[in-house]
Amino acid sequence: MSARGTRPGRRPGSSSTRQEILAAARVEFARNGFDRTTIRAVASAARVDPALVHHYFGTKRGLFTASLEVPVDPSEVIAPVLELPVGDIGPALLRTVLGAWESPLRPTLAAAFRATVTESDGALLRTFLLEFVLRDLVPLVDEPAGSGRVRVQLVASQIAGLLLTRYVLTLEPLASLPVDDVVAVVGPTVQRYLTGDWGRDLTGSASSGIR
Amino acid sequence: MSARGTRPGRRPGSSSTRQEILAAARVEFARNGFDRTTIRAVASAARVDPALVHHYFGTKRGLFTASLEVPVDPSEVIAPVLELPVGDIGPALLRTVLGAWESPLRPTLAAAFRATVTESDGALLRTFLLEFVLRDLVPLVDEPAGSGRVRVQLVASQIAGLLLTRYVLTLEPLASLPVDDVVAVVGPTVQRYLTGDWGRDLTGSASSGIR
Repeated sequence: MSARGTRPGRRPGSSSTRQEILAAARVEFARNGFDRTTIRAVASAARVDPALVHHYFGTKRGLFTASLEVPVDPSEVIAPVLELPVGDIGPALLRTVLGAWESPLRPTLAAAFRATVTESDGALLRTFLLEFVLRDLVPLVDEPAGSGRVRVQLVASQIAGLLLTRYVLTLEPLASLPVDDVVAVVGPTVQRYLTGDWGRDLTGSASSGIR
Repeated sequence: MSARGTRPGRRPGSSSTRQEILAAARVEFARNGFDRTTIRAVASAARVDPALVHHYFGTKRGLFTASLEVPVDPSEVIAPVLELPVGDIGPALLRTVLGAWESPLRPTLAAAFRATVTESDGALLRTFLLEFVLRDLVPLVDEPAGSGRVRVQLVASQIAGLLLTRYVLTLEPLASLPVDDVVAVVGPTVQRYLTGDWGRDLTGSASSGIR
């Protein structure tokens, strides 16, 4: 925008400042993950006062969702689902995620999906899924102990792939299938990943190890 | 590379010519799909002789996989699986796809996955899946009649999501799970999408219509 040969140490708030904070946030979150990134570090990288970051984005959660251009905090959206009996979470989780994508938010969500797959080789999307969306679900389905992480990652594989094929690639007829039908067919898959007995140890600690 | 102010009408073969043919192919395939794109149209867009396109890429299939930078023809890879009894295709298809990604091709495949999600808003990946990878599978699982397309698209949702989470995002522990374990847990999902009785009409012709 402005001709800026040199950058002042502290700059007042402006639209471009906001964008520079978001750019710095993307770099920091991709490099260090959600937990190990601080508002202070992002402010430092953007060369602004931390108070300005708080002013624009509120919390670190707000900064993260803004940096991904995700228009909602997914943890808040799925929080009610996690109050359900664990045997009912699968279809309800799927219906809730689909509900967000069936809303006017869809183009923004689809753009964020496409962008985060490529951004920093997917580091931001990985952080988003592991540290932000799925973490609260892990302890609820950690049966047998140690299996919770792979269970929720299998859920992520099915739901992310469904979002990709239905909303990003809009494969027909899948893209036009009523939500009730999608939940009826895919919901049992999600539930099986969450609570199914697979007859084998998938905790990653098995003697079979990594092949 | 070279300083090129004007472009000659027909240019001899060169490395940059090859790249320009591929660029033209990506535009044509994204715009018109696989079936409606011709070698002649790509050659015309790239301003080369069609014989040169054949020389570099052999067939239209070869041109398409090259334009996606996919190092193998997926149809050839999965062809043996389609010879199996339909009740056995699910786990075998999954194992075959994983096998390609467990090979030294993985970085190239992951790069192609990332690139095609964003290229032309996903039009190339949509064409790749619908007209190239999944088409031969549809008639094998079209029971009841009309359900074949949505069945294979559900399969695509699970397998694409698994490739994304395991190989592109490398979510751990899912990324390190032995292939046998992945097939044991996800294979039944694929098989259920292919041949399961869902107790509802998902052919897209139901009176419920599109909601």
